[in-house]
Amino acid sequence: MPEHQTAAILSIGDELTLGQKLDTNSQWLSRRLMDLGVQPVEHATVDDDLERISGAITRLCEVVDLVIVTGGLGPTSDDLTRAAVARALGVDLVEDPRALRMIEAWYRSRGRDMPPANRVQAFRPASARFLVNRNGTAPGLSAMATGATIICLPGPPSEMRPMFERWQSRRLRPPTDRIVRTRVLQTFGAGESNIAGMLGSLMDRDRDPLIGTTASTGVVSIRIRSEKASSTQQADKDIDREIAHLRDILGPLIYSESDTPLPEAILQRLISTGQSLATVESCTGGLLGQMLTAVSGASDAYAGGWVTYSNAMKQTQVGVDPQIIERFGAVSRECAEQLASGGLLRSEADHCLSITGIAGPGGGSEAKPVGTVWIGLASADASPDVRRFLFKGSRDQIRLWAANTAMGMLRQRLDGIEGELLGEAGR
Amino acid sequence: MPEHQTAAILSIGDELTLGQKLDTNSQWLSRRLMDLGVQPVEHATVDDDLERISGAITRLCEVVDLVIVTGGLGPTSDDLTRAAVARALGVDLVEDPRALRMIEAWYRSRGRDMPPANRVQAFRPASARFLVNRNGTAPGLSAMATGATIICLPGPPSEMRPMFERWQSRRLRPPTDRIVRTRVLQTFGAGESNIAGMLGSLMDRDRDPLIGTTASTGVVSIRIRSEKASSTQQADKDIDREIAHLRDILGPLIYSESDTPLPEAILQRLISTGQSLATVESCTGGLLGQMLTAVSGASDAYAGGWVTYSNAMKQTQVGVDPQIIERFGAVSRECAEQLASGGLLRSEADHCLSITGIAGPGGGSEAKPVGTVWIGLASADASPDVRRFLFKGSRDQIRLWAANTAMGMLRQRLDGIEGELLGEAGR
Repeated sequence: MPEHQTAAILSIGDELTLGQKLDTNSQWLSRRLMDLGVQPVEHATVDDDLERISGAITRLCEVVDLVIVTGGLGPTSDDLTRAAVARALGVDLVEDPRALRMIEAWYRSRGRDMPPANRVQAFRPASARFLVNRNGTAPGLSAMATGATIICLPGPPSEMRPMFERWQSRRLRPPTDRIVRTRVLQTFGAGESNIAGMLGSLMDRDRDPLIGTTASTGVVSIRIRSEKASSTQQADKDIDREIAHLRDILGPLIYSESDTPLPEAILQRLISTGQSLATVESCTGGLLGQMLTAVSGASDAYAGGWVTYSNAMKQTQVGVDPQIIERFGAVSRECAEQLASGGLLRSEADHCLSITGIAGPGGGSEAKPVGTVWIGLASADASPDVRRFLFKGSRDQIRLWAANTAMGMLRQRLDGIEGELLGEAGR
Repeated sequence: MPEHQTAAILSIGDELTLGQKLDTNSQWLSRRLMDLGVQPVEHATVDDDLERISGAITRLCEVVDLVIVTGGLGPTSDDLTRAAVARALGVDLVEDPRALRMIEAWYRSRGRDMPPANRVQAFRPASARFLVNRNGTAPGLSAMATGATIICLPGPPSEMRPMFERWQSRRLRPPTDRIVRTRVLQTFGAGESNIAGMLGSLMDRDRDPLIGTTASTGVVSIRIRSEKASSTQQADKDIDREIAHLRDILGPLIYSESDTPLPEAILQRLISTGQSLATVESCTGGLLGQMLTAVSGASDAYAGGWVTYSNAMKQTQVGVDPQIIERFGAVSRECAEQLASGGLLRSEADHCLSITGIAGPGGGSEAKPVGTVWIGLASADASPDVRRFLFKGSRDQIRLWAANTAMGMLRQRLDGIEGELLGEAGR
């Protein structure tokens, strides 16, 4: 069996080529392939056109070892991936009785009969195998073309991702002569270009391990990738050496020496010390709570909180003094502090984070421009920490910066770190 | 001069193919092209490899009338778009004195000399023209290949977008004989395959207007695209006729006859009737509030709410009877009803939605498996509506289904519709 040295990702759908939907699958698959030692060299997206899909599959099979197709596996007549793969392989479509039973069982487990339309999802190119989908009705496909492996996965990321992981753990054949090992550190509190400045020549493109950064609303991830080591032991040793280096330089900015997202890192610290957290959100409207509770097991530390979107809710539910809002406004140090301390009192949690700001696009003024956000942290055993930030970007970006920065403040307190959280805040 | 009937977008860069950066340019350009009457049929992304870039340009020039290339115009050695276009056109690179003067002026206006490295940005394929960049150092390019126009724009959206607009206003030639018009309907309450079954032959691929569906955790969008009408009037008339058809068939499932997302549709209805909404969330942990407040202007109807993640918060903050939780559990009809009515009372809103369930992966039991969610809707002027759902999928999916379904229930009440909300719930 040939190795999978290079890969291409083909995304299918009018909704993508017409710009109605943003393709995020290609990025996710590329990252995973890189982690696994396979090099993605091309992404392609074509509309729901049988000839264009099969043409793209045929062409990509000639240039790479692995073609990953996403989308077009649904039950409707514009779902053409099955037929396009059959055409590219020059074989017929056949009904797979096992796939049919799985789809029927999927509906039965929901107490329903399979709609007749879904029967088409049990068809596969005669020479292909089907891939089990535990989270939806569309089975995937895998097939061997001349010189390349083709796998087809459904478009929804929640179905695509676990199916890819299952397939790669059994069938992916990364090059054996090239050892690729990757580790990730997570930082919060300094911007990407600040960190690049601190790392200097450590980020040179001809080094091995290679060090790279990616930034996402305040979180700067640092990837360390070894590609030229002669053994995995050597690669791990090389990476360990780089990480010791990075630890020296970045120190308290590092909040995780693995791929742990910020909410999970916060919750781990709270749970391991038996502490609890509440939240009071105004401009983020529940985003912080949503990010925390996206982590399974959050209930061991997160009590809950309030979305005090209206001024009335701030006053009646968390006890903000109406005169404070009248005098200083809802977006003020005073209001942020009362939201945090009021939430702490009423929730009886050990810590309470509050966020109040102007996410825009409307509502800004010269004194309080869009992006102005006050974040408060009240704790049972420490005096309140209230800070003002000015984030730049869209409404979504400002809200995400605010939620991340609130978690960054709590993380500093939990780790006993003093420091600014500015970096390229609002970059 | 031939018309630009079809277009392809080629994005250049290792950071894209390796998944370090998400490509948003292709979506933006596709939307603009559609608005302008040009049909994008393919997106492609290749790494910083001269041969792959020039190969992609040559290939795309054979299939479409307009090839838009983004990225690879910077000053470093991995910026290869200029050389790749020259190779695809079979011409040499020449230095453009006007482009050089513009780059020098750009630096001068910032009080600096042009770094020597940037001189390379003044080179262009001999047969190409350069496009002015007012927001950065990289000039764009435009060139005629056999059968296609090629334009090259820098990668940063803040430079790319104004350059595209400037170019299209002068040089784009949308088809005068082929009119493309698109509209979208949004539905909630039935699954994609149910809707496909209801629409039957309306979804045939050879019809014009062409009707297609896409599904996203309960929301099924229906696109109607006219491509063969003889005038925009005719196209709009054809689409109107299809929409009347769809209205007859899908009736109350349609919640919007435009591209409006569900939260915005709910808020529009509330605002236009002067009503307000509160939320009490357990398993969704703030997701519903976050989705509502992602809409700018939400404060005109959304008061806020509670994230009653712990049982204590349910009791102390919203007034759930401790005996109810003891007897029926927090995931029960009785608890969902008390959460909704307690939230209604305390917020003084006109409606209050509550969500309590088991998002998993842990916490399920035989009687209440993972995915069991009770949703309550209390209103000032109607009796409570409490329903049980069983959603399948990951923790994220179950939570998103729950939040969408809660909004679907409120939308039914606001529109005076009775009906199940099952569809492929949990698809």
